[in-house]
Amino acid sequence: MKHIHVFAVLAVTTLSLGGSILSSASEEGYDNTAVLDGKLPPAYRDWTLITVAHEEGNLNDIRAVLGNDIAVKAYRDGTLPFPDGAVIARVAWAYVPSEENNKAFGHAQSFVAGAPTHIQFMVKNSREYATTGGWGYTQFQQGKPSKLDVAACFSCHLPVKNRDFVFARYSP
Amino acid sequence: MKHIHVFAVLAVTTLSLGGSILSSASEEGYDNTAVLDGKLPPAYRDWTLITVAHEEGNLNDIRAVLGNDIAVKAYRDGTLPFPDGAVIARVAWAYVPSEENNKAFGHAQSFVAGAPTHIQFMVKNSREYATTGGWGYTQFQQGKPSKLDVAACFSCHLPVKNRDFVFARYSP
Repeated sequence: MKHIHVFAVLAVTTLSLGGSILSSASEEGYDNTAVLDGKLPPAYRDWTLITVAHEEGNLNDIRAVLGNDIAVKAYRDGTLPFPDGAVIARVAWAYVPSEENNKAFGHAQSFVAGAPTHIQFMVKNSREYATTGGWGYTQFQQGKPSKLDVAACFSCHLPVKNRDFVFARYSP
Repeated sequence: MKHIHVFAVLAVTTLSLGGSILSSASEEGYDNTAVLDGKLPPAYRDWTLITVAHEEGNLNDIRAVLGNDIAVKAYRDGTLPFPDGAVIARVAWAYVPSEENNKAFGHAQSFVAGAPTHIQFMVKNSREYATTGGWGYTQFQQGKPSKLDVAACFSCHLPVKNRDFVFARYSP
């Protein structure tokens, strides 16, 4: 996950991912590779929730990991490596206290999602992205692609090579 | 949200919700009212994410709010009150630090979802649940219905009557 941190704090290098032919059964007429050409998958926000997390520090966000049909099926079936066509999205929002909720609870304890920060995608194509573990990485801010140090992404994900380079675990 | 807290710390009263006729277009052949009869909607875990949150204190959880098609459409269209058939699910997991993520980030900052705690549902039927703002409330633990003080749910949700008694806001 260091790429997230790196992105947040340091300058980033230019995103240079070639196009690829990669399709998903989950979104008719949409080629998932397009996400690496800077096009948000039209239905990504309806993808199934994989898990949630909170990052403190410079990120200071609360986040959800979503998966397209191929990714979620692989998670639930325990399929590793993930099949080509799997796409995992990490959506994040500012981590903010909720005065409204705290009032309802009777004391300060509630933190909710504020403004969106950025969205990152991992797209599986074992042939196209062979040099980065079979995954292409990309990032969007305010609906537009934003630069990402893909080599840093890959190097950070190396410790979870035994889970096909994916940190997020499925939460039932 | 006090009912959540109340449930977590105090004894609870008996759940006594009558059955109702309430159907959703989102899950063919499934009548959403069944959730109030103790049957988990078969596809709820695939519902669209509405938002995420973290509760400190006795709850100490990280949670996701999911909605069926009717609920999510209402959120996105800004429809209030929610139409009959809307169902909102709040799924929660233990809030646990991730040593694995922290190692990748290079310092302690990451909290992830641990074991599931409980799931709460709000089911909209303005006629059937007229005495509690048009919403039926229910709760599950480990896949089974668990007791809930519905009157406490309703009274806690009263402050957000202007949002049809729903705390969670949609996170884009």
